[in-house]
Amino acid sequence: MQEEIFELIEGKKYARLRELLSDMNPADIAQILEDVEERELPVIFRILPKELAAEVFVEMDSEMQQLLIEAFSDTELREVMDELFMDDTVDIIDEMPATVAKRILAQTDAKTRKMINQLLAYPDDSAGSIMTTEYVDLKKHMTVDMAFDRIRAVGLDTEAIYTCYVIDASRHLLGIVTVKDLLLNQKDCVISNIMDENVIYANTLDDKEEVAGQFEKYDLMALPVVDKENRLVGVVTVDDAIDVIQEEATEDIEKMAAILPSDKTYFRTSVFSTFKARIPWLLLLMISATFTGAIISGFEEKLTVFPALIAFIPMLMDTGGNSGSQSSVTIIRGISLGDIEFSDIFRVLWKETRVAFLCSIVLAGVNFIKLILMDYLLLHTFDAGKQIPEIAVVCLTLFCTVIVAKIIGCSLPILAKKVGFDPAVMASPFITTIVDAISLFIYFNIAIVFLGI
Amino acid sequence: MQEEIFELIEGKKYARLRELLSDMNPADIAQILEDVEERELPVIFRILPKELAAEVFVEMDSEMQQLLIEAFSDTELREVMDELFMDDTVDIIDEMPATVAKRILAQTDAKTRKMINQLLAYPDDSAGSIMTTEYVDLKKHMTVDMAFDRIRAVGLDTEAIYTCYVIDASRHLLGIVTVKDLLLNQKDCVISNIMDENVIYANTLDDKEEVAGQFEKYDLMALPVVDKENRLVGVVTVDDAIDVIQEEATEDIEKMAAILPSDKTYFRTSVFSTFKARIPWLLLLMISATFTGAIISGFEEKLTVFPALIAFIPMLMDTGGNSGSQSSVTIIRGISLGDIEFSDIFRVLWKETRVAFLCSIVLAGVNFIKLILMDYLLLHTFDAGKQIPEIAVVCLTLFCTVIVAKIIGCSLPILAKKVGFDPAVMASPFITTIVDAISLFIYFNIAIVFLGI
Repeated sequence: MQEEIFELIEGKKYARLRELLSDMNPADIAQILEDVEERELPVIFRILPKELAAEVFVEMDSEMQQLLIEAFSDTELREVMDELFMDDTVDIIDEMPATVAKRILAQTDAKTRKMINQLLAYPDDSAGSIMTTEYVDLKKHMTVDMAFDRIRAVGLDTEAIYTCYVIDASRHLLGIVTVKDLLLNQKDCVISNIMDENVIYANTLDDKEEVAGQFEKYDLMALPVVDKENRLVGVVTVDDAIDVIQEEATEDIEKMAAILPSDKTYFRTSVFSTFKARIPWLLLLMISATFTGAIISGFEEKLTVFPALIAFIPMLMDTGGNSGSQSSVTIIRGISLGDIEFSDIFRVLWKETRVAFLCSIVLAGVNFIKLILMDYLLLHTFDAGKQIPEIAVVCLTLFCTVIVAKIIGCSLPILAKKVGFDPAVMASPFITTIVDAISLFIYFNIAIVFLGI
Repeated sequence: MQEEIFELIEGKKYARLRELLSDMNPADIAQILEDVEERELPVIFRILPKELAAEVFVEMDSEMQQLLIEAFSDTELREVMDELFMDDTVDIIDEMPATVAKRILAQTDAKTRKMINQLLAYPDDSAGSIMTTEYVDLKKHMTVDMAFDRIRAVGLDTEAIYTCYVIDASRHLLGIVTVKDLLLNQKDCVISNIMDENVIYANTLDDKEEVAGQFEKYDLMALPVVDKENRLVGVVTVDDAIDVIQEEATEDIEKMAAILPSDKTYFRTSVFSTFKARIPWLLLLMISATFTGAIISGFEEKLTVFPALIAFIPMLMDTGGNSGSQSSVTIIRGISLGDIEFSDIFRVLWKETRVAFLCSIVLAGVNFIKLILMDYLLLHTFDAGKQIPEIAVVCLTLFCTVIVAKIIGCSLPILAKKVGFDPAVMASPFITTIVDAISLFIYFNIAIVFLGI
């Protein structure tokens, strides 16, 4: 398929190309156009049927959109913009440099321009920033038949026609009616009798992640958005909610790996941007490791007496770090999904303590057996008086470290959330650095007591 | 709200309770019932209107469902089951112990039972396992008016009526028609003239994660599922796709934190199950750390000559581990989202190498300045002949470790995917263990060369 298209482009067989592309899905066409040479792009774009061209345009990434806009005449630009839904137009303008954004706005009429500027003003993470302003509104005295007429009248220009919103004269939201309700009722039935007044809605400034969570919880197709005065101003559709869910998951994962989140895909991010997203945490964590180093330095002389202890440092640090990450990551995800709140902190602590106890018993036990066996099998000379105390120190440290790591791992994200920080930042790398220092501190103090050094 | 409900339950004011609950959303009722005492549960459930009761039942977790089923008479059980959609019934049976599942199946008619058994047979991660078998099917010679009649006839019993599927006599999928298409065309228009033949569909055995990805890519509301002979057998709806997206993100996050994935929420997993999900990787990684320990042991004697080198071990290990995790986690997420494939491996390597180079220059540079300043300010006596070589060893190791860590971190997930392993398993903890061993190996060898030990 892709090969055929490239051959048609090369051979300039545009009639056949138009025919072929017309049957394809906009998302697929946009993907193919990514691999087309820049100077060919406007030519191919111009042969697409107008409506399809606009749909393809929406699916492109912002660099390609900018390239096309710069190649468009004003008339062409207006034609594409006329076909776009309001929320897509706003997204595109948001991504463009100021001069390009200005040119786009110049091609829209005054009313649209006012609407776009309003939408652009909503904060990036708000429900207002992802809503569309095109929807079907009904009045409560309408009949089912009148409602269908209204849907037909506005239908072509809206994304979601299957949920209609019943409003009063000052645009307050009174209820919703689905097309299913309309189909299953008589034509002369009055809307106020069939509308559902128990509406789930969001405010323009609500967090978009919470709004996406509502779609998941209530299996919604669309969610109305109201302003401070409870007037209907827009609708969030399920496809935008899915995008938010994926973006938020990616963001959480990036933060958990000590990366500053970006909203571009891997290959679209430049090397320098990737570097900038990764270096701050690497630097901070590297410098934090100074404390761990200081703990070792303070114990340096004693370590030269029992050099065998040095070999266990990586194992103790890693196991502690892994135990802590397991807890922190589980809790961070639970917070994201709305399963865990601050009031659950004692339930979480109690559960993690019990899990930690089981884990540390098993880890310390297995480690004890492994060390005895290894010493016995490898060294052949087993000096119980010398080796048993060393092994005991290692296993006891392991036991304590795992418990401390899990308790820190589960409580830090919840506390972070409470004081308004992002819990995801409290994940593996951060926990690891803290747990490293603590585990070495425990290790050396247990060694001092048990080995009498 | 919740308080009022509990008071009504306590006071046994069931008429008012019924009134109050009837206006609420099933998901909210299910959430409130979680906190109701077990013996009250069947009583409250019985006062709900029949249809709402079934909707609430679907939203409950499986422990509560089982409790209710055990309290139901056969007639009550049949009434609830009759109201459920096929895919929900299958999900519930799948979660129940064999005896309860048997009792549920006994309450369904032979045809439904056969269908349920077929659906139960699909693998857990397949499109077949999340599809519903209730949808609106049309014939291509029908008119728009006939199509509306068909929707009204089957409408009440299906989840998704807004996309209708046009099939031939042997149920082969010919095209789709949306209710929007039907509304915007004349009543006597024939379906074959308005249907879209360019249908995006899935096979029953397709991976459900890929199916959910199609919803995201093409902004779908529903996706038809066909069997090996291309006959339509079911439909996946967008609410199920959202659940899959969230589950898969959680699973990836869990695997990245060295936890075996579970499909229950945090508090619904018992302490022992949580322990079982966490201990295998902890054990495996602890035992792998033996290699790191062995590297240190082999270098033990030399370390006693330069004990200052020991203090840098945690910093080098952690920075290496963090650098590697950043790359691996970024690549794993890219693979999950479909942005990165095996054929991209050289592009990824090239990009990561450049990012690694930038990161390692900065990290080594900052570390060099920090160490010189610290030695100079803290020790006051700066012995350039002794300290500069040690500092150089640390910074050079840091430089090499970060580059190696990022290269390993980005390539292992892609290679894992290629040979059929789960890339998410190649995340932080696994990478950390490998990078630890490598960074120590580099450290000691550079020390041998530079310090002449």
